[in-house]
Amino acid sequence: MIKAAVLGATGYAGAELVRILSLHKDASLVWLASHSYSGKKFSDVYPMMKGRCDLVLQDDDIAKASENADVIFLALPAGLAAQSVTPELIRSKVVIDLGADFRLKDRSTYEAWYHNQAADEDLLAKAVYGLVELHRKEIKSASLIANPGCYTTCSILTLYPLVRNRLIETDTIVIDAKSGTSGAGRSSKTDNLFCEVNENIKPYGVAAHRHTPEIEQELSLAADEDIILQFTPHLVPMNRGILATCCARLRPGVGEDEVKAAYSECYGNERFVRLCSDIVQTKNVKGTNYADISFRIDRRTGNIIAMGCIDNLVKGAAGQAVQNMNVRFGCDEAEGLDFLSACTF
Amino acid sequence: MIKAAVLGATGYAGAELVRILSLHKDASLVWLASHSYSGKKFSDVYPMMKGRCDLVLQDDDIAKASENADVIFLALPAGLAAQSVTPELIRSKVVIDLGADFRLKDRSTYEAWYHNQAADEDLLAKAVYGLVELHRKEIKSASLIANPGCYTTCSILTLYPLVRNRLIETDTIVIDAKSGTSGAGRSSKTDNLFCEVNENIKPYGVAAHRHTPEIEQELSLAADEDIILQFTPHLVPMNRGILATCCARLRPGVGEDEVKAAYSECYGNERFVRLCSDIVQTKNVKGTNYADISFRIDRRTGNIIAMGCIDNLVKGAAGQAVQNMNVRFGCDEAEGLDFLSACTF
Amino acid sequence: MIKAAVLGATGYAGAELVRILSLHKDASLVWLASHSYSGKKFSDVYPMMKGRCDLVLQDDDIAKASENADVIFLALPAGLAAQSVTPELIRSKVVIDLGADFRLKDRSTYEAWYHNQAADEDLLAKAVYGLVELHRKEIKSASLIANPGCYTTCSILTLYPLVRNRLIETDTIVIDAKSGTSGAGRSSKTDNLFCEVNENIKPYGVAAHRHTPEIEQELSLAADEDIILQFTPHLVPMNRGILATCCARLRPGVGEDEVKAAYSECYGNERFVRLCSDIVQTKNVKGTNYADISFRIDRRTGNIIAMGCIDNLVKGAAGQAVQNMNVRFGCDEAEGLDFLSACTF
Amino acid sequence: MIKAAVLGATGYAGAELVRILSLHKDASLVWLASHSYSGKKFSDVYPMMKGRCDLVLQDDDIAKASENADVIFLALPAGLAAQSVTPELIRSKVVIDLGADFRLKDRSTYEAWYHNQAADEDLLAKAVYGLVELHRKEIKSASLIANPGCYTTCSILTLYPLVRNRLIETDTIVIDAKSGTSGAGRSSKTDNLFCEVNENIKPYGVAAHRHTPEIEQELSLAADEDIILQFTPHLVPMNRGILATCCARLRPGVGEDEVKAAYSECYGNERFVRLCSDIVQTKNVKGTNYADISFRIDRRTGNIIAMGCIDNLVKGAAGQAVQNMNVRFGCDEAEGLDFLSACTF
Repeated sequence: MIKAAVLGATGYAGAELVRILSLHKDASLVWLASHSYSGKKFSDVYPMMKGRCDLVLQDDDIAKASENADVIFLALPAGLAAQSVTPELIRSKVVIDLGADFRLKDRSTYEAWYHNQAADEDLLAKAVYGLVELHRKEIKSASLIANPGCYTTCSILTLYPLVRNRLIETDTIVIDAKSGTSGAGRSSKTDNLFCEVNENIKPYGVAAHRHTPEIEQELSLAADEDIILQFTPHLVPMNRGILATCCARLRPGVGEDEVKAAYSECYGNERFVRLCSDIVQTKNVKGTNYADISFRIDRRTGNIIAMGCIDNLVKGAAGQAVQNMNVRFGCDEAEGLDFLSACTF
Repeated sequence: MIKAAVLGATGYAGAELVRILSLHKDASLVWLASHSYSGKKFSDVYPMMKGRCDLVLQDDDIAKASENADVIFLALPAGLAAQSVTPELIRSKVVIDLGADFRLKDRSTYEAWYHNQAADEDLLAKAVYGLVELHRKEIKSASLIANPGCYTTCSILTLYPLVRNRLIETDTIVIDAKSGTSGAGRSSKTDNLFCEVNENIKPYGVAAHRHTPEIEQELSLAADEDIILQFTPHLVPMNRGILATCCARLRPGVGEDEVKAAYSECYGNERFVRLCSDIVQTKNVKGTNYADISFRIDRRTGNIIAMGCIDNLVKGAAGQAVQNMNVRFGCDEAEGLDFLSACTF
Repeated sequence: MIKAAVLGATGYAGAELVRILSLHKDASLVWLASHSYSGKKFSDVYPMMKGRCDLVLQDDDIAKASENADVIFLALPAGLAAQSVTPELIRSKVVIDLGADFRLKDRSTYEAWYHNQAADEDLLAKAVYGLVELHRKEIKSASLIANPGCYTTCSILTLYPLVRNRLIETDTIVIDAKSGTSGAGRSSKTDNLFCEVNENIKPYGVAAHRHTPEIEQELSLAADEDIILQFTPHLVPMNRGILATCCARLRPGVGEDEVKAAYSECYGNERFVRLCSDIVQTKNVKGTNYADISFRIDRRTGNIIAMGCIDNLVKGAAGQAVQNMNVRFGCDEAEGLDFLSACTF
Repeated sequence: MIKAAVLGATGYAGAELVRILSLHKDASLVWLASHSYSGKKFSDVYPMMKGRCDLVLQDDDIAKASENADVIFLALPAGLAAQSVTPELIRSKVVIDLGADFRLKDRSTYEAWYHNQAADEDLLAKAVYGLVELHRKEIKSASLIANPGCYTTCSILTLYPLVRNRLIETDTIVIDAKSGTSGAGRSSKTDNLFCEVNENIKPYGVAAHRHTPEIEQELSLAADEDIILQFTPHLVPMNRGILATCCARLRPGVGEDEVKAAYSECYGNERFVRLCSDIVQTKNVKGTNYADISFRIDRRTGNIIAMGCIDNLVKGAAGQAVQNMNVRFGCDEAEGLDFLSACTF
C-alpha cells in the first residue's frame, strides 16, 4: 500500500487528488493538510465526501506529513513548494509537486515569469517534468516530480508529435486555449464570483501567461531547437475542461498522412491519449484522465489546426499526478484513473 | 457474469446505464439498442465512450435482446415497455424498466395520468416497485422491476420516515422539486434548447405532473392511509441533480428527536442514504448513487422542512436500476456504484 | 431634473441603479459613492458603462452626497442606513433605502431577525414601505422610502390579492422561492464563487430567512390578521431572476373565477404587473421591471399554486427604487423603466 | 414613421429585431411573419413581449409584407432571401437581409462555401455590405443591404485598422472566435440541446466555416490585396456574445503608437466602437450595440493579439440591421440602440 500525504488538500486540485486517491486500491491517504481549514474534517469542507473521507485536516507541515508517507503531493501556492522541499526529503520520499516551482529548468526563466525566487539548482536538476507520455522513463526513478500545468499538458500533448517529427514551421505556432473556471482556484476573488464569470468569456494573461515558457521548454526539447510561440488563455463559464486550439504552418510537403503517422507513432499505445477523427470537445473528457486530440488541415492557408482537450483537474493536475505516482511506484499506470465521464454531461 | 441488454441505450438514462455497466465488474454488456441510431457504434453517439464502449447499436427488439441476456434494461418512451414485456419473457429473464409503465399498481390511475393504456393486470401484479431502500426484500426475487422515477425517488425517500412513523399531518404535504435538464431527455424539442433553458427557472406540470400518483402510492403504502399531496416540479439550468424541498405540518408533540430517530431507523444502515446535519445541495451527490437528506423544524409554523437531493440519472434512474440488478442477482449492492462526485463540481 | 445620489454604487443593486438612472430622462446622477472603490471611476469597476458613466466614485458620506441631491439612494450593508439617516436629512431630501433597515415597523421583530439595532422609532414611523402597487398613495408624499427586498416583493405581489380578498386559509401558506445569484451580492465569499454555485441548487436560510417577517408584515396588513408562513429560499445557478412558487389551501367555495377577479381587481391597471395564463418563467422578466404572475388550482388537494417572477435587481431592487422615485417626484411611473427583456435570453 | 416588416420574426435574430424596433421612436412594426408560428401572436412565442408586441404572425410572404412597409428585414434560412428579393421590390422599398445571400460579391465564392445557388448578379451588384463603420456612405443610398454575419462583424472590426494601415503581415492572420449559443439559432437540433451545450466548449466548422470568405472579402478590400486567413469558431455555453481573438505578425517597425493611431483613426468618432485599454470581455457588450476592442503586442514573438467583443444578436445581427436602417432613413444613427448592458451580468 502506497501511503500518500496531500498538502493543500482543500484547493480544487488537492480535493481532486483526495477523491482519486480515496478510490485507488493500492494507495491509502495518511495525511491531509490544509492551511485554511486545519482542524476540520475534509468532509466538512467537501460534504460530497461525507463517509468517504472524513480525515481531519492537519497543518501544511511537510516534515510531519512525510513521516508516515511514501509519497507527498504538494498542491500549494506558487513558491511554497520550492521553500519546503529539501534534498534530504527527496532522498527517502517521493515528492510530486502540482505547482510550478520545479517545472522550469532555467532559473532565470522562472524568475522572469513568476517574479519569485527560483528553486535551488540541485533540486531543479533532480526534478523530472511529469508529463507521463513524454517522460515516462525518467519518472520511473524520480524522487521529485514536477507535475505539469493544465494548459501546458493540453498544449504540449497536442503539438508534440508535430514538432518532434518536424512537420510544422515552429515560428508560426499560435495556441488559443480555453479553460473552465476551476482552473482559477478556490480563493475568494471578485473575478471568480459566479456573476462575474457566468455568461461571459474573456482572454487574460495575454502575451504574459506563465505557462508560456513551460510549453516552450518541452516543445523545444522535442524539436531540439528553441521555440517561441503565442499562447493566449481564456476563461470559460463552465466548471472543468481545457481546449487548446493550436494553429501552425505545415512544412512543405507535409500532408494528412504524415500528420496521422506522427500522432500514431507518439500516442498509438498510450492508454490516456485518444486520437479522434471527430472534432474534440471538453465534455468528452470531463472527469477523466483522457487527452482527446483531433486535427484538420486547411489547404487554402497551408495551416494545420490541432485541437486537444483534457479535464484541467484530472489530466491537467490530480489525475496526472496519480498517473505519475503509478509509474513511479510500479502500479498499473491506469490504476485509480479508470473513470468515465458522465456520458453527455 | 451477468449479461445485460439495454434498450433505449442512447437516451440520457440509457447512456448512463451503459456507462455504469461498462465499469461493473460482475456485469457485461451484450446488447445495446437504439431506435434513433441503430447501426452506429455507441461511441459514435457518445464519443466520451470511445475505447470504452464501441458496441454497435441494434434495433429496439426485446426478443432478440433477451436471447443472450440475463437482464434487460428498458429505457424507452412511455407505453413501449408495457407493449413489449410479456409473461413468457419474465419467466426466464429479469426485466428492469426505467419507464413508468409498471410503477402504478392501479390501472385507472395510470390511465388518468399518462393517457396511455395501462399494462396488463398480471404483469402489474408481478411488478415490484424498485425503490431499493423500501422494497429490497421483494426485489430479491422479482422478475419485473419497475424502476422508480427521478423526482419520485427523491421525494419518497425524503418523506418516507415521516409518514411511516406518523410524524406529520399527511394532508399538509407540499413538495417543491427542482431538476437538472437531463431529466427532460434528449429529444430535440424547442423547450430543451440551450437558450431556452439557460438563465431561467420555471415551474411546469403544475397540479398535473405524472409523478404525483407514484409518490402518493408509496407514501400511502408506508402510512397505511390514502395520502394526497401537492407536487410541483421545476426546471433548473444545470445538467444533473434533483432537490425536493418538502414541507408538512408536524403532528403535536413531534420534535427533533422523533424526527432524527425516524430517519436513523429507516436509513441508518443504508449504504446510499446519507443523513446530513448541514443543508443538502445537489452537487454533493452529482454523479453518485447517494441520496442526501437534511431537515429543519420551524417552531413558529410547526412545520418540518425536509430536503433531499439525488442525481436524477444515477439514483434517479440508471444507478438505482443497477442497484436493483445487484440486489436481484446477489452481487454486493454497491458493486459498480462506488462513484464519488467530482468534489466541488 | 431630479438630482440623484447613490451610495453603495458598486454593489450589484447599486450598479443597476446607476444603469437605470443614467438612461432616465428626468434624472441626473450627481454623486456616486463606493466604500470599496472610492477614487476610481464607476466605469473602471463596471467597464460596460465606459462612455456612459465615468463619474468618479466618492466616499459613502451621506451628508456630502445630499448636498446637491434631491434624492439619495442607499444600497449599503444592513445597519448602515439606520445609522446614517437622520430626521434632519429627510426633512429636505428624499431617501430611498434599498436595504432592510426601515422596512419592518416593529423594532423587536427587526432585532430578532437581523441581530442589529433597529432604526429609531420616529424614523420608522415616517418610513413608507415602498412596494409601489400596494402603497402608491403614501409613497407620493414620503421622505423616507424603505425599498422592499427582492424575495419579498415577489412573494407579496403574488399572494396579496389572495389574502386581501380572503380566498385562502392563511395558516397554510408555503412559499418556495428561487433566486439568481446576483441576489447574493458582490462580496467575495467562497460560497459565491463560480464553481461553488454552478451546476448546483440548494436551499438556505431554512426556517430562518430575514425576508420572512417582511412578507408576513405586508400580508398581515392586507389580510387584517396576523399571518405566519413558511418561506424557503434557494440559490439557482443563473445571474438574475426570482421565482416564488406559493402554495395555500383555498377557502371553501373559492374557485378560478374568484381568484381571477381578485388579481384583476388588484393589478388590472398596473403597468408593471402582468397576469399570465401561461406558467411564468424568470427569463420572461429578466432585465425588466415586470412582475409576471400565474396560478393553477389543484382540485384534488384544494390548493392554489400561485407563481410569480421578477428580476431580483430590477423590480426586486433598483427598478422598484426608481419606480418609487417616479411616484414621489411626479414623473411618469414608467419613466426610465421601459426595458424589454432580451427576448428569449 | 418608418414602417417596418420582419420576415422570420421568431428566430432569435428576428425576435431581437422585434424587441429593438418596438422601442424605436421613429419606427413602427407593421408586419411580422413566421413560417413556424403563423397565426399565433408574437407574444405567444415570446411571452416576455406580452403587452409590448402582440401582433399576429403572418406567413413569410415578401410581397404582402412589403405592401405597407418602407423597410423589410429578412431573417430567413440561407438561400430564401436570394429567391424572394426582386429588382422591382428594391426599386420602391429598402430590404435589409440578415442572412448571407447578398454579402459575397463573387458568386462562385458563395456557391463554393454555401452549396446554394448564388443570388442574381444584378442584385449582388446593388447590394451594399452593411458593416456601418466601413460602408456608411454607400448604405445611405442603398436599397438592398446585406447585413453582415456575427462572427464576421466582430473579426472585421477588430482587424480592419491593422490591414488598412498595413501594420500586419496579412498572410499570418489567425482568428480564433468564440460565440454564445443563440448564434446557433432556434431550430431543434440535438447539438443545441441544453445538456449538449452546457459545461462544454468545442470548435466547429474548422477550416470550413462560411464566414471565412466574408471576412476575407472585407479585409482584402481594406488592404487592397488578396487576403487569406485562418478562422476557427467555437461554441460557448452562454446565451450571447462573440469574442474574436486575432493574432498576426506585426510588420517591421510597427509598435504600439502606430497601432493606437490606426484604431483611433478608424474608430475615434464611432458611436458604437469602444477602444479599451483593459482586456475586453463579452459581458461588457452583452445586450448592447457596442463593439469593444483591445490589443496587446508581444515583443517576444512580434505578434499583435487584437481582441474584439460584440453581442452576436445586437451588433452581430439585429442591432446592426437597425443601425443600417437609421443610416438609410436619416435617423440618428443611435436611435433605438441606446441600450446599456445589465451591468455585470
